[in-house]
Amino acid sequence: MPAEKPADKPLILCAPEPRSLDLIFTPERLAELRARFRLLECPETEVAALDPTALAQVRYIIGQPPLSAETLAAMPNLRCIFNVESNLLNNMPYEILFQRGIHVVTTGAVFAEPVAEIGLGLALSLARNIHGADADFRAGREKWGGEGNTTARLLSGSEIGIIGFGDLGRALLRVLSGFRAKIRIHDPWVAPSLIRAAGAEPATLETVLEQSDTVFCVAAVTSDNQGFLDAKAFARMRPGAAFLLLSRAAVVDFDAFAAAIQSGHIQAATDVYPEEPLPQNSALRAIPGLLHSAHRAGALDQAFKRMGEMVWEDLSLLERRLPPGVCKRAERETVARMRSKPVSVN
Amino acid sequence: MPAEKPADKPLILCAPEPRSLDLIFTPERLAELRARFRLLECPETEVAALDPTALAQVRYIIGQPPLSAETLAAMPNLRCIFNVESNLLNNMPYEILFQRGIHVVTTGAVFAEPVAEIGLGLALSLARNIHGADADFRAGREKWGGEGNTTARLLSGSEIGIIGFGDLGRALLRVLSGFRAKIRIHDPWVAPSLIRAAGAEPATLETVLEQSDTVFCVAAVTSDNQGFLDAKAFARMRPGAAFLLLSRAAVVDFDAFAAAIQSGHIQAATDVYPEEPLPQNSALRAIPGLLHSAHRAGALDQAFKRMGEMVWEDLSLLERRLPPGVCKRAERETVARMRSKPVSVN
Amino acid sequence: MPAEKPADKPLILCAPEPRSLDLIFTPERLAELRARFRLLECPETEVAALDPTALAQVRYIIGQPPLSAETLAAMPNLRCIFNVESNLLNNMPYEILFQRGIHVVTTGAVFAEPVAEIGLGLALSLARNIHGADADFRAGREKWGGEGNTTARLLSGSEIGIIGFGDLGRALLRVLSGFRAKIRIHDPWVAPSLIRAAGAEPATLETVLEQSDTVFCVAAVTSDNQGFLDAKAFARMRPGAAFLLLSRAAVVDFDAFAAAIQSGHIQAATDVYPEEPLPQNSALRAIPGLLHSAHRAGALDQAFKRMGEMVWEDLSLLERRLPPGVCKRAERETVARMRSKPVSVN
Amino acid sequence: MPAEKPADKPLILCAPEPRSLDLIFTPERLAELRARFRLLECPETEVAALDPTALAQVRYIIGQPPLSAETLAAMPNLRCIFNVESNLLNNMPYEILFQRGIHVVTTGAVFAEPVAEIGLGLALSLARNIHGADADFRAGREKWGGEGNTTARLLSGSEIGIIGFGDLGRALLRVLSGFRAKIRIHDPWVAPSLIRAAGAEPATLETVLEQSDTVFCVAAVTSDNQGFLDAKAFARMRPGAAFLLLSRAAVVDFDAFAAAIQSGHIQAATDVYPEEPLPQNSALRAIPGLLHSAHRAGALDQAFKRMGEMVWEDLSLLERRLPPGVCKRAERETVARMRSKPVSVN
Repeated sequence: MPAEKPADKPLILCAPEPRSLDLIFTPERLAELRARFRLLECPETEVAALDPTALAQVRYIIGQPPLSAETLAAMPNLRCIFNVESNLLNNMPYEILFQRGIHVVTTGAVFAEPVAEIGLGLALSLARNIHGADADFRAGREKWGGEGNTTARLLSGSEIGIIGFGDLGRALLRVLSGFRAKIRIHDPWVAPSLIRAAGAEPATLETVLEQSDTVFCVAAVTSDNQGFLDAKAFARMRPGAAFLLLSRAAVVDFDAFAAAIQSGHIQAATDVYPEEPLPQNSALRAIPGLLHSAHRAGALDQAFKRMGEMVWEDLSLLERRLPPGVCKRAERETVARMRSKPVSVN
Repeated sequence: MPAEKPADKPLILCAPEPRSLDLIFTPERLAELRARFRLLECPETEVAALDPTALAQVRYIIGQPPLSAETLAAMPNLRCIFNVESNLLNNMPYEILFQRGIHVVTTGAVFAEPVAEIGLGLALSLARNIHGADADFRAGREKWGGEGNTTARLLSGSEIGIIGFGDLGRALLRVLSGFRAKIRIHDPWVAPSLIRAAGAEPATLETVLEQSDTVFCVAAVTSDNQGFLDAKAFARMRPGAAFLLLSRAAVVDFDAFAAAIQSGHIQAATDVYPEEPLPQNSALRAIPGLLHSAHRAGALDQAFKRMGEMVWEDLSLLERRLPPGVCKRAERETVARMRSKPVSVN
Repeated sequence: MPAEKPADKPLILCAPEPRSLDLIFTPERLAELRARFRLLECPETEVAALDPTALAQVRYIIGQPPLSAETLAAMPNLRCIFNVESNLLNNMPYEILFQRGIHVVTTGAVFAEPVAEIGLGLALSLARNIHGADADFRAGREKWGGEGNTTARLLSGSEIGIIGFGDLGRALLRVLSGFRAKIRIHDPWVAPSLIRAAGAEPATLETVLEQSDTVFCVAAVTSDNQGFLDAKAFARMRPGAAFLLLSRAAVVDFDAFAAAIQSGHIQAATDVYPEEPLPQNSALRAIPGLLHSAHRAGALDQAFKRMGEMVWEDLSLLERRLPPGVCKRAERETVARMRSKPVSVN
Repeated sequence: MPAEKPADKPLILCAPEPRSLDLIFTPERLAELRARFRLLECPETEVAALDPTALAQVRYIIGQPPLSAETLAAMPNLRCIFNVESNLLNNMPYEILFQRGIHVVTTGAVFAEPVAEIGLGLALSLARNIHGADADFRAGREKWGGEGNTTARLLSGSEIGIIGFGDLGRALLRVLSGFRAKIRIHDPWVAPSLIRAAGAEPATLETVLEQSDTVFCVAAVTSDNQGFLDAKAFARMRPGAAFLLLSRAAVVDFDAFAAAIQSGHIQAATDVYPEEPLPQNSALRAIPGLLHSAHRAGALDQAFKRMGEMVWEDLSLLERRLPPGVCKRAERETVARMRSKPVSVN
């Protein structure tokens, strides 16, 4: 390639809050990015006020700044918005973006592997009481051998349900692949043949709840499914079965969830809470049978660095006038239905 | 099959201590066993005193009673001894058994899946501090999101070492199959090609220790390897790497092990201890960075019931004059080298 | 659901040439389709002349009829065009379709499994001379045992290259999964991380050609890659390596291809030809070392029936106002670059 | 290790007919073998006549020479006989060998991968008529596209039966792992749990024959099963199903087999014949629907070289007083039942 004058380099508007460029790019990758693109860093609230000449040159946005129709109109060269927070806010005119063929993509897939791993770890901890046995041991009241295993069970050969078959569901399926389990998946947005092709069985929500020893919930919140896991849903579960909440608190009726655990009907682990941080006096804290994780499932440095890699790979494709293939695209049909709350901390 | 007179049914001498027939057989299987065989139940210490007519009819033994050359000579029809404790004691003349072609088989493979599952669970708990974060949460001092993940790491894509490639090592490999990890295995008793065929890389002990983020130890104790994991071995490990002791305490120099954890050089989990139960005043109890499991890895009811199934399947083969194919056979070359202590409780 | 009046049922315009509804739907599925939708069958050349009232009701099109901007404007309720021929012709204003958010989807994925299976079959036939040995046997000149295996080789443990990583490449990877081969993939339209995630190694075209014992070509023809597999490319291949052409003749310089086979430098199989049917007097017919398949790789009845299933599943999603998830969408960036010739027979 | 005097090196008696040391060892490995052992090469018929001093030093035998009780008694240091032909002849007193704990091992596993690969290749050739379509093409009478596929079918998603679950059956399972097929296995010598653990379903012979689209026969010949695949067996098969004979001709009633193919009831491929070479005037040669392979499935140079590697690895274990772990051991119970004819050519 012939040398490019600085002014020739494509311009990326960077407003990645709550992320930062240093969080999502390794120093080496950031250097490469600067070598190939001009980076215009700007707090997201000041994007609208940028100089029109600058706006006119913007080819990509990293971040999810509020964008008005006017601001968008000032960016005729915009090709793609990389939303690295990954929850789609309703702060830009998506319809215009879709009409113009500007991609809006998210990098939430980076959380799939971390969430799947801790999900499996939580499930194994519940199945074998790893956390409780360690606490007992430290307290000098451990039970040895079979006496400590009265409620222990294997995942191998068991029945497992997964609610939600996006990136997280797929990653879960992968880490479960060595367990010879019967796996049923419920996701009303996914065609059954895709679930079958992945080696699992598509199922109704009822079947997943009723016929599983372990249920992983990785469903995103939408306008349709808030609180759909309610008292009736938990009542369907097998006595002693485990429920792992790994996506968003809003898909669960938390009072019903707590009651189902408290009564001993199910055991559970959760990474999310209706209010975060959970108040110190919340009754949830002391429920026996609930394994706690303070919204730690995804937020690993390794995950954030992969965000940058995803952006980098799709930038490379877009620069060659190819569609992005790594990040996930917002969809006309569903963008308005997403209701997951954005995070304010990483 | 035509009806058989009771006296025609082959005789099984049952002395399965510390197991019991009810522990290892489901009621249905036990009924089938009684329908097809005569069961002569006898405390293991009284086998030698059995009536010679009875001894002469014994075709199988379930258990590991002490047997003298004389007692063996009194059992000309003996075909197979099913050792359901699974550690081979030095309480019978193996050379005579091998000469006569009497199989001595063990059912220890039933523990492979339970041990592999808890092993992975312990590894995930260490990698993500699942147990510690839960304890912190209950104590109201949890850290949220990325702040709680400063030492968190993924197994996916990491380097994993396994010491010992018997049934346990194979089961571990299976539950790790979804993690896309680089897996190295050290087992001086196993030909490298078998490790390669299983998709892993054969390696020296040094390489396994030096190049792993997580090391699983599932090596049996032999006359050759007592205490082979010593201070020098732990010093080879990567700072912050995890060591999971899942087989027998005697393969480890426990003082050196404790020191390596105490110093913060490695983190660890163990299912076995030099003395069990561990004395209440043992310094091991309070070491930070050591996740405890009170010899609970294998002793699941599901595992014991599989013992009975293994015995049942091999009985069926032996009755048809075929060699046993499910249980593991004691070997002339190695039987004298095994040093794992038998268990006294299930 | 309450009963629907016929007029309420959504209208599908059916112009599936060269397919037919009976080819792509089983009788049962076609009955279900008719129960849920109104089907307006129409030769593709007469779509423009349809009654405006009918056009105004069209919600879906099955087929790829020529569409003018005017005709499209007459279909305000159109949501999706199911192109069941699967090669995108330049016979409709894609830009308008994209602006309006009308999906154009193809069902070419149904050919992936059939092509991958015959691809592997052809590769095994070349590696072991299955076809030649059978012909020799019938002619009474077979060679027995090792004498017949002087050029035989295994795929297991060999190095394999795949050019193109769309549905076909993925299906190939799947049928090759039991062969423990080192697999390198070249696809300039696919991000390297996706290839790595699938368990293969992304590579340049040069590396794939130079370091493979077997090369599968499943690349689509685009405006960029016609004839890119030329004399230089074949010269890079290992002597005796196998080249399997499974996509389109136009990606290959056929004269160079024939010369590389004729000279004995490579062996090859092809499913496609520059001219089809190939003239009887074509020199290609008699080349030793070339295994022939007369464009039969994909056209199985099982594949056509899956087309109907794909359409059915995506219709179900679209009816619920969800985006199609099974068929492949035409992309703004690439639709104009596709150059595969449509088929005129099934 | 300290340098060893030549006389100290363990002695290997080499009588590997019909193999040769050069066939089974690479030059490098043979050099290593000579560096570590003394090799006493001897035609198998002259072993008995060897000098008693030499016999007394023999620690290993590579080959399957006839051995009398007297000759064996003259070899007090013998540890293992490596039968590299791999079919066990009745030419040595096995009972004495077993009593003395001398291992008799075979290297037939080297043929598993080559046989599995050609087996899959033959199955794909039958399913897609690869060989016939190529012959038609060369004759200028090929059929294009779907017209050439009227009998074509996929292995993916089909039902597959395997008769025999030794090394060959396991290798077949592996190369079939990417096909998402329902696989049933019949082997009366193998416990059902081992088949289930491998991911297949244990089944009766009748079920395998009746419910498969493709049947692979990899059963060894024993005293119990000669000709067990007879007219009745083939009549059970699905019309149009494929039968692949990959083990030994003697398990099949060849007249019945030929009749079932001739009638069009099944299609078939075979690698073995009742008489080899098959007479030129055999009616088998011209049967339509039978794909021929002249006993070429296993005899690849790669396979022979692996024999040497297996021997080398087990020698290393045996030298360390460990049991052989790579080669397959002859079994007291079954050695007398094996009836596979040895090969006279490689």
